[in-house]
Amino acid sequence: MSNKKCEKDEDLLLSVICMSADPYLRSGCKTGEIPRPMSGFVVGKIIESKNKAWPVGSFMGAALPFSSLQLLNSEILAKTISWNLTEYVTEETATLGLGVLGMPGATAYGGFIDVLRPKKGETIFVSSAAGAVGSMVGQLAKNIYDCHVIGSCGGAEKNKLIKEKFGFDGAIDYKAVTGGAEELAKKIKESSAAGIDMYFENVGGMHFEAAMACLKAHGRVAICGCISRYNDASGAAPLNKIDISQMIYSFQRIEGFVCMPWLGGAKGAFLKEMSAWHKQGKVGCEQCIFEGIETWPDAFQSLFMGANLGKVCIKM
Amino acid sequence: MSNKKCEKDEDLLLSVICMSADPYLRSGCKTGEIPRPMSGFVVGKIIESKNKAWPVGSFMGAALPFSSLQLLNSEILAKTISWNLTEYVTEETATLGLGVLGMPGATAYGGFIDVLRPKKGETIFVSSAAGAVGSMVGQLAKNIYDCHVIGSCGGAEKNKLIKEKFGFDGAIDYKAVTGGAEELAKKIKESSAAGIDMYFENVGGMHFEAAMACLKAHGRVAICGCISRYNDASGAAPLNKIDISQMIYSFQRIEGFVCMPWLGGAKGAFLKEMSAWHKQGKVGCEQCIFEGIETWPDAFQSLFMGANLGKVCIKM
Repeated sequence: MSNKKCEKDEDLLLSVICMSADPYLRSGCKTGEIPRPMSGFVVGKIIESKNKAWPVGSFMGAALPFSSLQLLNSEILAKTISWNLTEYVTEETATLGLGVLGMPGATAYGGFIDVLRPKKGETIFVSSAAGAVGSMVGQLAKNIYDCHVIGSCGGAEKNKLIKEKFGFDGAIDYKAVTGGAEELAKKIKESSAAGIDMYFENVGGMHFEAAMACLKAHGRVAICGCISRYNDASGAAPLNKIDISQMIYSFQRIEGFVCMPWLGGAKGAFLKEMSAWHKQGKVGCEQCIFEGIETWPDAFQSLFMGANLGKVCIKM
Repeated sequence: MSNKKCEKDEDLLLSVICMSADPYLRSGCKTGEIPRPMSGFVVGKIIESKNKAWPVGSFMGAALPFSSLQLLNSEILAKTISWNLTEYVTEETATLGLGVLGMPGATAYGGFIDVLRPKKGETIFVSSAAGAVGSMVGQLAKNIYDCHVIGSCGGAEKNKLIKEKFGFDGAIDYKAVTGGAEELAKKIKESSAAGIDMYFENVGGMHFEAAMACLKAHGRVAICGCISRYNDASGAAPLNKIDISQMIYSFQRIEGFVCMPWLGGAKGAFLKEMSAWHKQGKVGCEQCIFEGIETWPDAFQSLFMGANLGKVCIKM
């Protein structure tokens, strides 16, 4: 099957069980670049080990190349992010480590809990609300912080899902918004006349401007993603407009972040808390599973067609 | 002189010693509005009192109407912000309470210490660097946090001042910048090739865009003022452009604030720390003093002509 072997201290052999396809990978694929293996988030099982932290049978989440069997040494392990899923998943539930217990979960957790710093009963607006991250932000806001939760996503099916399955109070079909940021802001205010305390930004463009137009005093915006710009090879997609003077007397804050500090354990208690909330049925992540490594390109492309509901995983 | 008298509990009679003229007041003066007394920051002495917190002889800083003698009751005191300067000023040094120990000092202190959260040796860019707030931010950055400090202000005289008197490492004459944000960013990088960790925003416009273009990972922007928009009665002054996607992987933060929490004592230890730093010669505030209440309009207008250096005060 393979001639890979653990030889040095800390070496380990990882058998990858599943891989993730995520929008952010798009910005790493520039046309004309020298080909190299795609990397991303994977979950695997340790099948050979000279590493005390990772005995045989452990489950690892990590950012690694998309290949089925990997010999990892101390140098590789030091350079990549990894998290120990042994207490939390089995071979059958390994895809949880790509969702609620992986990058999207850590993104929702870190961005909502530590960047937005919610107070009970506040109002939040979430874009890409039917996606893995957005839907978990909505669930945390609703089920842990009792927030008024407004989501935006594209199409009737997704809008139905976020209300019925994830408990959003308001759902806005952004594809039906033809009047830009102004119309979107009006729709947000139809769900919360006083505006919003928090905005979880996944898309950019008119969503950002509409959210800023609705943002209350002491409002916070967490910039998590900007999918509207990822496919813009020309760099010509319009920048956002902002009136920074609105932020002064209102003490408003805009903050960018990625999941790494929470996923890697430097901040917060991500695995422990999210796993508990998941078991209590308070937060979950829809999965859209493709079977076989050869389905990766289709799985990836599906992210940009607005076709999927939830986290896209590819099982080996 | 007056028929005002303290009659009820908590009443006090304040004799105003000096008043402040500040750019932010511009946005409160709309053409065509029903006339009302201007209000702003004043320092005065308590000359009669039924208020235990403010015995006769106390010095009060407060936001109040610009009138020489004021009877304040508990209702007025509850609605306005005030701070107790008795330990820190005398009749002769009362104008300190409009500068280093007043709104500009609390703005510099709160914005720099608590909003920007500096680390020793970081690089900061400050706009309106010769102004009361900007010059104090520069001094705090240089003398307390050993930062590399770059300032922007208009004209050779001010640029000389911030380097020679306030110890700025780099000084940029924004009036000589004809190529917009791009040229300004280039000038910032001439002083710090690696960019900036912090930006203290007083003006908006090209300064904001240049600062964002130079902002390093984990960079912070404190939005304190936006003087470029205050005189824009039409609302037609162009908004800023922003690429929010630059903030994601870099964990950048933009945050608006005003001085009230620090000035009123809800946050930090403003009076105690700034007064100590002032006595140690680490932070001070240039004063431009007009004599007589009738000079207020001239004093105010001078703020927008780029004529003054430092805090504009009017002595009664």
